[in-house]
Amino acid sequence: MEKLNKSFASDNWSGVCPEIMKSLQTANTGHVEAYGEENDFYTRHAIEKFKIHFGQDASVFFVYNGTAANVLGTSHLLRSYQAIVSAKSAHLNEDECGAPEKFGGSKILEIETKDGKIRPGEVKPFLSSIGFQHHSQPRIISISQVTEKGTVYTPGEVKTLADFAHSHSMLLHMDGARLSNAATALGVTFRALTTDAGVDVLSFGGTKNGLMFGETVLFFDKTLAKDFEYTRKQGMQLHSKMRFISAQFDRYLTDDLWKKNAGTANRMAGLLEKSLQQFPRLKVTRNVDANGVFVILPPEIISRLQQYYFFHIWDESTSEVRLMCSWDTTEADIDGFTQVLENILHD
Amino acid sequence: MEKLNKSFASDNWSGVCPEIMKSLQTANTGHVEAYGEENDFYTRHAIEKFKIHFGQDASVFFVYNGTAANVLGTSHLLRSYQAIVSAKSAHLNEDECGAPEKFGGSKILEIETKDGKIRPGEVKPFLSSIGFQHHSQPRIISISQVTEKGTVYTPGEVKTLADFAHSHSMLLHMDGARLSNAATALGVTFRALTTDAGVDVLSFGGTKNGLMFGETVLFFDKTLAKDFEYTRKQGMQLHSKMRFISAQFDRYLTDDLWKKNAGTANRMAGLLEKSLQQFPRLKVTRNVDANGVFVILPPEIISRLQQYYFFHIWDESTSEVRLMCSWDTTEADIDGFTQVLENILHD
Amino acid sequence: MEKLNKSFASDNWSGVCPEIMKSLQTANTGHVEAYGEENDFYTRHAIEKFKIHFGQDASVFFVYNGTAANVLGTSHLLRSYQAIVSAKSAHLNEDECGAPEKFGGSKILEIETKDGKIRPGEVKPFLSSIGFQHHSQPRIISISQVTEKGTVYTPGEVKTLADFAHSHSMLLHMDGARLSNAATALGVTFRALTTDAGVDVLSFGGTKNGLMFGETVLFFDKTLAKDFEYTRKQGMQLHSKMRFISAQFDRYLTDDLWKKNAGTANRMAGLLEKSLQQFPRLKVTRNVDANGVFVILPPEIISRLQQYYFFHIWDESTSEVRLMCSWDTTEADIDGFTQVLENILHD
Amino acid sequence: MEKLNKSFASDNWSGVCPEIMKSLQTANTGHVEAYGEENDFYTRHAIEKFKIHFGQDASVFFVYNGTAANVLGTSHLLRSYQAIVSAKSAHLNEDECGAPEKFGGSKILEIETKDGKIRPGEVKPFLSSIGFQHHSQPRIISISQVTEKGTVYTPGEVKTLADFAHSHSMLLHMDGARLSNAATALGVTFRALTTDAGVDVLSFGGTKNGLMFGETVLFFDKTLAKDFEYTRKQGMQLHSKMRFISAQFDRYLTDDLWKKNAGTANRMAGLLEKSLQQFPRLKVTRNVDANGVFVILPPEIISRLQQYYFFHIWDESTSEVRLMCSWDTTEADIDGFTQVLENILHD
Repeated sequence: MEKLNKSFASDNWSGVCPEIMKSLQTANTGHVEAYGEENDFYTRHAIEKFKIHFGQDASVFFVYNGTAANVLGTSHLLRSYQAIVSAKSAHLNEDECGAPEKFGGSKILEIETKDGKIRPGEVKPFLSSIGFQHHSQPRIISISQVTEKGTVYTPGEVKTLADFAHSHSMLLHMDGARLSNAATALGVTFRALTTDAGVDVLSFGGTKNGLMFGETVLFFDKTLAKDFEYTRKQGMQLHSKMRFISAQFDRYLTDDLWKKNAGTANRMAGLLEKSLQQFPRLKVTRNVDANGVFVILPPEIISRLQQYYFFHIWDESTSEVRLMCSWDTTEADIDGFTQVLENILHD
Repeated sequence: MEKLNKSFASDNWSGVCPEIMKSLQTANTGHVEAYGEENDFYTRHAIEKFKIHFGQDASVFFVYNGTAANVLGTSHLLRSYQAIVSAKSAHLNEDECGAPEKFGGSKILEIETKDGKIRPGEVKPFLSSIGFQHHSQPRIISISQVTEKGTVYTPGEVKTLADFAHSHSMLLHMDGARLSNAATALGVTFRALTTDAGVDVLSFGGTKNGLMFGETVLFFDKTLAKDFEYTRKQGMQLHSKMRFISAQFDRYLTDDLWKKNAGTANRMAGLLEKSLQQFPRLKVTRNVDANGVFVILPPEIISRLQQYYFFHIWDESTSEVRLMCSWDTTEADIDGFTQVLENILHD
Repeated sequence: MEKLNKSFASDNWSGVCPEIMKSLQTANTGHVEAYGEENDFYTRHAIEKFKIHFGQDASVFFVYNGTAANVLGTSHLLRSYQAIVSAKSAHLNEDECGAPEKFGGSKILEIETKDGKIRPGEVKPFLSSIGFQHHSQPRIISISQVTEKGTVYTPGEVKTLADFAHSHSMLLHMDGARLSNAATALGVTFRALTTDAGVDVLSFGGTKNGLMFGETVLFFDKTLAKDFEYTRKQGMQLHSKMRFISAQFDRYLTDDLWKKNAGTANRMAGLLEKSLQQFPRLKVTRNVDANGVFVILPPEIISRLQQYYFFHIWDESTSEVRLMCSWDTTEADIDGFTQVLENILHD
Repeated sequence: MEKLNKSFASDNWSGVCPEIMKSLQTANTGHVEAYGEENDFYTRHAIEKFKIHFGQDASVFFVYNGTAANVLGTSHLLRSYQAIVSAKSAHLNEDECGAPEKFGGSKILEIETKDGKIRPGEVKPFLSSIGFQHHSQPRIISISQVTEKGTVYTPGEVKTLADFAHSHSMLLHMDGARLSNAATALGVTFRALTTDAGVDVLSFGGTKNGLMFGETVLFFDKTLAKDFEYTRKQGMQLHSKMRFISAQFDRYLTDDLWKKNAGTANRMAGLLEKSLQQFPRLKVTRNVDANGVFVILPPEIISRLQQYYFFHIWDESTSEVRLMCSWDTTEADIDGFTQVLENILHD
């Protein structure tokens, strides 16, 4: 690590932004009731802040990480014989080591997609299972915002899926690990992409945008949230010193910090894309809607380039790689990367 | 909260000790590989530090909290038809909202105890189930150190249980949420109470002794640890910015910080016990082995006293309450509490 | 086995009564729709028969065995953070190898009893957990009728428990593996002990009273039964050739066959009890309410006696044994057993 | 149902063949030790019979149905973070209402196939997940013999998959619900398709070929079978009156009864195929390797034809239907069906 420049591996290789670090220190005074109970005013305040952004009907629960937010938020709404429909590439499906199946006992019905986004027409075939006792019953549609392929759903696309879900007695879950990046990219509020677009349950992330730890589960209908505190506790996700998650989110949602951080990451991805387009041997493969750039590199240069700036190979077979920008990526990082890339390409 | 003095509710109402807070800031520089992978030197260093304290054969895994450490550490070693034997009062049994049953599918066989400690003779009756296909098969004995009733196992007592377990093809798990308090109280090393006493798997806590978040699972035999990284990930306990757990534990195990914090908490509990003994109407009900004091108060004064110093009622029927001291409890806090108590008693 | 006389081990060592065997042959004609779907008239008829006995609101589902009826019937009504309260001696708790914990993820809160029966006062202490997020939430009270200790709940006792349960938002489950024996012993209808007494979900057994295989889950409120077909299928309990379970139960509930078989077993247990009371060295330890007799034998004669008539030791420490009578036990069996016992005692 | 002729819906719409029905009556005499314990000689004998067919190293366990055999046989060999690779069309994947996910907590990695069969090259892409902590770890390849698309694996194809599995530390499971049909069609022994071909665990079915209930799980390596009795019990699949499953299988494996029944079903499918080929408007879509015929019918005739002979639509979009023959299908049935079909087509 020590020898590496800044990495483009993932937006969770970066640290904690200064404002968040400060909020942790500020919250570190005296005794505060544990487990986010009612006398923990840090948690009370943070929840109020969420309601400002997502509406007064939002029920807000803090957990440790995105895996938990996704798994607990969905499984709380499912019986084990009910299924989640998601993109094959969804983190929930491919990158949780089977946590949804383990914790909820539910099946995931996967849809192969080009751009990481799913459409109602692709969910439709699963509806034929409804009422057939031999099949898992589709109950939740889960989408990622930003998707794992770097694309972003518009509010209209979310609403179309939500309407479809609701018209078939299904619910819509959004994995918003990078919701800040999506909202910033679209220039819309959180509400526009969630509450107002018909999302039923949201995993709201912060760790990929400058927080130290913690993720939020939001239900937009109080009846769905009922008893979630037990699901969280049994799900091993109730933090004792809760104020240290709450204080981070409170700050995150104040003075547009979320937008500042996400804006930087998105802008740097845009710059990076532009830089890459200068090289005719490279091919940017997907829309750069937010803070991720997918590009096909000549296979022979990958490991050399990784020695300077680490990043993950997305598809070994096509030598497509993923370059993620973070809240702390700078123009100098983009320039540095471009320079090294140029040197290696012309070597 | 704001009106309250320091609380004796639990050692997780206190904040983060200054040394740990500093370690978080120090670790917050540049990019570090996520998920504690091999290029995360904070995690590498912290693991080395654990090996100094627990032996080179220890396998070390960081998770978010004690519930997870207990549940994942045990369920990793169990098939669902195998059972855990524990004290009825064990946190694992009574205070995890059924997480062991949910995640592992395993039954807990409980032993009613006076002092929170279990002895081989109390485990013996469960052995008759071994080989009987209708019964869950006892496989792990789980003990808490410090126990939930404030008592401490001696190294000899641990060893006796470990030997008993091993002689019946069972394993010994220790919930060491307050292991630092126990080791400090006994004046022994961690090794003496764990590795050398035959413990197979340990939940090592820090949050109750000055950390912000994070708990450690240690296996003392590498074959038991095999594949635990998958159990952790599927258990929703793999932190992306792992360095921020690692850095805390690294510091915690350096320059006897753990001992300093635990020593304060224990000493304050001793002072508190002595103060309480001045009042003939009160009865300290259990040995004050570490940082908790159990005392029977006149029922009519409890709620009045709680307005000044919050604490939990342990047994409503006898009006026994639990008073926990923390790393930040001071003599002034003890004096203040005693003063208020005296005023109320003589009112 | 070949050398043994009839056994008093359990009422599932006996075979299938002639009427049931005949029903299987009668049902074995032509093609019938699989899985008990609507064109399977054997299943339709059997369900109608159940409604005659249990009321038109009963929802009726066939499964393979009592373990499944108990586990699926309860877990269908539980979220994993909710708990079952039962007698420690309940089959559900002690003899399912942890199936309720595995399948439902739920905790069982156990009550130590003298006679296998539980009373509201013993459930009460668990109510303090309600609303406390760290504890499993008590949701179902489960009782066995006949109990594992040979005793029988009166309709009034069942109703008292049901009322208590309902007044605390809980439900009452009855493990009726031997409900026929109980109803026959009390001279009451099934309704009196279940529907009319406030039972919410019933495991109705037949295998211990002359059937070959199959058990029934009954819900007495349609909203509780909703979607149970998926729980059954996912619970691996949907039989393809369903007619062969249905036909047995149809016959079982016709012409009082259940009463005839249970009556024989109960009467034989009464005879056996009387025979045992002749021997001053023996002590019948529990009320013989139905078809089981518990008796303390001189330890030195047990294995000798088992060579002639096999039976299970109930409590090794007191040399209490359990003698079960079955639908096919005869007076000659009782006489034979008594004779052998006398010979051995006087040897 | 009453108005229907024999059905081609599934081979589990037929009843119990006379020889099996007789075996049930023969076993129905006197008391026999419950749960298949050692004094149940019916079970002992049946197990011996299996060893004759599958080799002396086979471990043999009876369960109730195919769902259970598939789920318990695989999950016993898996930790929840390990995955099963199967054809998308596999019963295990699509038709168990999520039972594998629920009971084992494991993910199923699915392969889209043309003919229901999978090849090593299709499993290969999943190997890249091995050692990556974020992904479920592929551990079992599961194949169906006969496949759900009516095709049959040759011994060589099975062996190729087994060798591939073993060379990557994986195991091979075979869902042999119709293994008798496959072996009969190929003219080979059970051994040739299982033990000798490297299968590790087998679900051996009988209900689709003349049995009343019961399925067998076989492990071909004793270390894999260890403790399976607990998995079975906790899996709610331990029958008390075990002799009635054992006696059926004992008879099934005697005097080639399995081959007689399967031979009839296969031969009838061959006849049916030939009959269908007379009609130029119909198209048989898949190889008729065993007892199932897939054919595209003109959509407008399907419901009319179903009034006479019920069958399932396989693919609504192409109006492909599935016609299954059973042990009791006769030439007269085929002729009758053909006649009705002809009438409707020419109507």
